[in-house]
Amino acid sequence: MANIRSNTYSIIIGENSLPSLNKFITKKNYSKYIIICDDHTLEKCLPTLLFHCPKLHEAEIIELESGEDKKNINTCIQVWGALTDIGADKKSLIINLGGGVVTDLGGFVASTFKRGVEFINIPTTLLAMVDASVGGKTGIDFEGIKNHIGSTQNPQAIYINPEFLKTLDTRQIKNGYAEIIKIALIADKVFWNKLKKLKEIDEFYTEEIITKAIELKNKIVLTDFYEQQLRKSLNFGHSIGHALESALIQQQKDILHGEAVIAGLYMESMIAHALKLISVKEKTEIQDYLKRLFKPISISKKTQQSILHYITHDKKNEAGKLCFSLPKPIGKFQLYNDVAINLVEEAINAYIKLK
Amino acid sequence: MANIRSNTYSIIIGENSLPSLNKFITKKNYSKYIIICDDHTLEKCLPTLLFHCPKLHEAEIIELESGEDKKNINTCIQVWGALTDIGADKKSLIINLGGGVVTDLGGFVASTFKRGVEFINIPTTLLAMVDASVGGKTGIDFEGIKNHIGSTQNPQAIYINPEFLKTLDTRQIKNGYAEIIKIALIADKVFWNKLKKLKEIDEFYTEEIITKAIELKNKIVLTDFYEQQLRKSLNFGHSIGHALESALIQQQKDILHGEAVIAGLYMESMIAHALKLISVKEKTEIQDYLKRLFKPISISKKTQQSILHYITHDKKNEAGKLCFSLPKPIGKFQLYNDVAINLVEEAINAYIKLK
Repeated sequence: MANIRSNTYSIIIGENSLPSLNKFITKKNYSKYIIICDDHTLEKCLPTLLFHCPKLHEAEIIELESGEDKKNINTCIQVWGALTDIGADKKSLIINLGGGVVTDLGGFVASTFKRGVEFINIPTTLLAMVDASVGGKTGIDFEGIKNHIGSTQNPQAIYINPEFLKTLDTRQIKNGYAEIIKIALIADKVFWNKLKKLKEIDEFYTEEIITKAIELKNKIVLTDFYEQQLRKSLNFGHSIGHALESALIQQQKDILHGEAVIAGLYMESMIAHALKLISVKEKTEIQDYLKRLFKPISISKKTQQSILHYITHDKKNEAGKLCFSLPKPIGKFQLYNDVAINLVEEAINAYIKLK
Repeated sequence: MANIRSNTYSIIIGENSLPSLNKFITKKNYSKYIIICDDHTLEKCLPTLLFHCPKLHEAEIIELESGEDKKNINTCIQVWGALTDIGADKKSLIINLGGGVVTDLGGFVASTFKRGVEFINIPTTLLAMVDASVGGKTGIDFEGIKNHIGSTQNPQAIYINPEFLKTLDTRQIKNGYAEIIKIALIADKVFWNKLKKLKEIDEFYTEEIITKAIELKNKIVLTDFYEQQLRKSLNFGHSIGHALESALIQQQKDILHGEAVIAGLYMESMIAHALKLISVKEKTEIQDYLKRLFKPISISKKTQQSILHYITHDKKNEAGKLCFSLPKPIGKFQLYNDVAINLVEEAINAYIKLK
């Protein structure tokens, strides 16, 4: 069992993580436990959680409808209302059991209910394990913009049980693996060289890979909790990736975050090369690996326009200028605060021709 | 001009406070300024602000409808939407110009928009100056419960221009003066002895009085930001006061927070005397001053029952026991965690006979 220490809390990884959660809450004096889950985790993960944590048999359950489109203020209003009906108070503990939608929204609801009650995250998807649940960011989407409303609030602890990943299909595993690739590309060349050799789906989510990815992200977050500089490095692939994701969601297309990020990594590698941050060899190395694992997303003219709209409204921008994090070289990064929009257009055009 | 230092920010009080705000924002590098105000402050206070802060001529204005019943999630959704339309980003500055509704809601919106943008409070009512804007609490009402959803987030600074109070009527001044009386009674006997001599409305809100009241509250908040113990002293008058306020609001009666607090101070002084925390002389001294300035509120049998209901459901209670902060003696306080309900009933009965 790995135990990664973050600033105010621990991330516990391994098959014994859930029994150790039971110990943790037994030591504390909470007035009430509330588990927030969705229809998927209610069925697939809650029984395992309750089996390992007898203390939670008395917990109240709040079930959300699953789906990124439910990560909105209306769902928050419902959950705040449910917490009120349950009689949750400032000494209650909220446990978020689910993917990024549950941990992001549940964290936001917890951080704002009665001005903040304590919460624990139990991420159940690979994406939430390596990305969404670590780093203290909570949030909901608003007017089609991802994580537009939120807070920065650490959980009391994060418990990661890789067994939960066995309930996921290949597409969901790849969704999380995208962030593992990203962190390697900007933070650890040795790790990237290791990933490059992985081809089979069940190699993507071993305890070792998950632990390494979290360690790397945690190190960055610890150094720069309030995202002044270093933490912005995590945005590699996300400037275009987020815009693409927003554009497709607006069209009600079926797109996962990691799939958009992979497309983003592909296009932004092109920009990194155009800005002479990585060599053509490095660019090709990245793109070949991405192409081998992921099919390109089809981008219409309308989507392209929409990407350009969203990217100019990105919250990462400063004073109207496009901000990117790019590898320089692989395993390190550089922040670019004024990427020209035509470079983005060129990258999208090149990506469109991929197929 | 007084400058009170809080943990991470300053409270600047006096007629030169607004020019110093202009200096403050000129030094910083904000991408955009957004002023949140209501219909009243748009007309009465915004011109003065713009006169003293030429830098704000380029600011975008978001106008709220005034009234406590607008301090809700729907207004937040409107303001988040307006900020999105304006193109506010993480380097924008939000300036809340108004009473407690504007500073509480504006602070909450700012602390959650894009996970938090910086904000400044310019309270324009006496109540907001001495109470709502100091202490880092933001919030909105939810399902009829006051400040049920919110965050704890400090502003960048608070600018207090007592000139704004000239736009208020006597009732609004007294509304804030209630909190000034309260803080004196639990925190500073010398200040109380000074207040006792004040009879005219324009004596209640001099720069000296406002500064002293803020200094006292700030000292308490600094020592106990997360309300573990000391900060609970601020609840004097509020256990019964809040219950009375909730009861009358439920009946759609016209009641201001400070008016309910004054009635609360009156009744809770009776309880403090019954518990032998203050002498009969002290009790009489407090009650005589309150009676001289404020007419008693008429409390029906129904309201009395409603007060008892709300007080037993107060979020300040612990394990079902009634928690009070009471003076012991005047100028100091004691927290009482188990006040008998019959003492509350007796106090209400005595108050009812007042007229």
